Amino acid sequence: MLINKAFHLETRPSSQVPAGPHNFRLIETPVRPLKEGEILVRHHFLSLDPYMRVRMNEGASYAPPHPLGEVMLGVTVGEVLHSQDPAFKVGEAVIGLGGWQLYHIYHASDLRKIDTTLHIPLQAYLGVLGMPGIAAWYGLYECLQPQAGQTLVVSAATGAVGSVVGQLGRLLGLKTIGIAGGPEKCRLATKAFGFEACLDHQDPHFPEHFAAHVPQGVDLLFENVGGRVFALALHHINLFGRIALCGLISSGYDGRPSPLGDCRVIIEKRLTIQGFIISDHRQTLWPKALATLTPLVRSGALIQKETCAQGLEAAPEAFFNMLKGQHLGKQLVQLFPAA
Amino acid sequence: MLINKAFHLETRPSSQVPAGPHNFRLIETPVRPLKEGEILVRHHFLSLDPYMRVRMNEGASYAPPHPLGEVMLGVTVGEVLHSQDPAFKVGEAVIGLGGWQLYHIYHASDLRKIDTTLHIPLQAYLGVLGMPGIAAWYGLYECLQPQAGQTLVVSAATGAVGSVVGQLGRLLGLKTIGIAGGPEKCRLATKAFGFEACLDHQDPHFPEHFAAHVPQGVDLLFENVGGRVFALALHHINLFGRIALCGLISSGYDGRPSPLGDCRVIIEKRLTIQGFIISDHRQTLWPKALATLTPLVRSGALIQKETCAQGLEAAPEAFFNMLKGQHLGKQLVQLFPAA
Repeated sequence: MLINKAFHLETRPSSQVPAGPHNFRLIETPVRPLKEGEILVRHHFLSLDPYMRVRMNEGASYAPPHPLGEVMLGVTVGEVLHSQDPAFKVGEAVIGLGGWQLYHIYHASDLRKIDTTLHIPLQAYLGVLGMPGIAAWYGLYECLQPQAGQTLVVSAATGAVGSVVGQLGRLLGLKTIGIAGGPEKCRLATKAFGFEACLDHQDPHFPEHFAAHVPQGVDLLFENVGGRVFALALHHINLFGRIALCGLISSGYDGRPSPLGDCRVIIEKRLTIQGFIISDHRQTLWPKALATLTPLVRSGALIQKETCAQGLEAAPEAFFNMLKGQHLGKQLVQLFPAA
Repeated sequence: MLINKAFHLETRPSSQVPAGPHNFRLIETPVRPLKEGEILVRHHFLSLDPYMRVRMNEGASYAPPHPLGEVMLGVTVGEVLHSQDPAFKVGEAVIGLGGWQLYHIYHASDLRKIDTTLHIPLQAYLGVLGMPGIAAWYGLYECLQPQAGQTLVVSAATGAVGSVVGQLGRLLGLKTIGIAGGPEKCRLATKAFGFEACLDHQDPHFPEHFAAHVPQGVDLLFENVGGRVFALALHHINLFGRIALCGLISSGYDGRPSPLGDCRVIIEKRLTIQGFIISDHRQTLWPKALATLTPLVRSGALIQKETCAQGLEAAPEAFFNMLKGQHLGKQLVQLFPAA
């Protein structure tokens, strides 16, 4: 009999006790037999993403709080282990909202098959071909409406989203300037993701470096961070600049507000700021996004770098390390590590 | 010999000495004879607008500071008094950037003729058919992209811009909710400008009144004010709401920042915020705007209310009273009052 392991959201963070691995509880339960129409999937990889931190909080944000005592949500890729639905065969690769657990029983409507004849690694469907990659596509193409030769600034440049924005921006003929925390990430941004330059916001001379690298100003800003980095980018933004607001990870997503010091800049520079949540566009724009992204991944023009925690037990710590920026590229959990 | 009277910008406001009528100085000079190609115009009305306050400040904003010792800028309507350009005849009605003065000598390229066969009062070309009306048109049509049945909130609802936004919004089948300061303005908004309701932000129960009047939330926000009124509107804005940011008059335009308390709302509610300055679109969109607005003014579907100071000498005080909101509708100066 298979034993499932799953992390439940056990408690919520509070002002007294900040968020941490203690909010999750590991539960072991036997996997029950399948009923008609059900599909059992063994998860290979779990995606860890900042939106999860928002869902841990009490109170509605863009989605209701994740229920206590239930398996923490998350996107997973895996393979069909047993199937009582003739449309799904054992061994097929699938993606679903499986959560922080080894196994999950799905219905067909909750699973999407992965075309393994493309020879794209499964992990890519959690990153460059998953929500982060599609968010990058949406923010860049739909919100920023780039034109070749423009200067694009991307914060969290080596993250799952930012790294795709930078690569797509370069392919579009933009001058791409990344912002990241620390020299290792900045090297990755230029060497692996093709940013023309990447500026270390932890460097005491960051403001001067920024000014020096955008002599023509900033036309387009893909914002993942907020706070002082956002304020500095706004200081250098050009007239009629466009801003895609994808994330505000500097707020810690712990309920603290993320203020904008002065709205006058929005008028004075005639800015357009658009906030978005990529899951809104699942039915409408994801196919269009994937039609652009998939060939680029196949050809090697668009790559993914990963930080992969080993084993489900490592998920909570890996999650909070990611929120602190202690990762490179896409943060994954490999649920059945090679021995 | 004609004697011109003009207000020069004599000094700039500072943190020690705030802006006031003392920053202007009245100068009298004889009107010189015309040279070839010049046109002398007698100004009937001067428009007073908040952007002038920004131009009084030191330091670049969206435009350079107005030069000291020169006639304060402003849009004027008047009639040709003498002409050395065969294209302009004595008695023709014209609009130009004549400034705070009785007379001005123009070249043809700086004047636009007003078609008096339409029988629209000259003052309308400073308001509903001038920059304020066109700003209303641009923010509503181009930024907010309204659909019938949506709820539109307009701050400074009885101002030169807001009153046009409300009237156009109603014609488009929107539910229009105004915000204004004091019961007199609120009555004007509903009685004259057709707002479904107008909420008094000076009323201690303003937040409750606001909530009660937007049971389906706010879809579109035309923002002229900023500060706590803006924050409250954002609190009630719906998912995918759109915001046209036209002005931030609550900041006083005296150099104080106008903060936004929390950018998270932009993501959580998937907002699009667009700041604009209407003079940018003079060459491109003004004709389109006027093609919509002019027939509405002729038919009486779009009206203008005015507060009119009498005589050039009254301009500085009227200007600062307007910045404090002590006016109704479009603030004008009638330069040659009827005796």
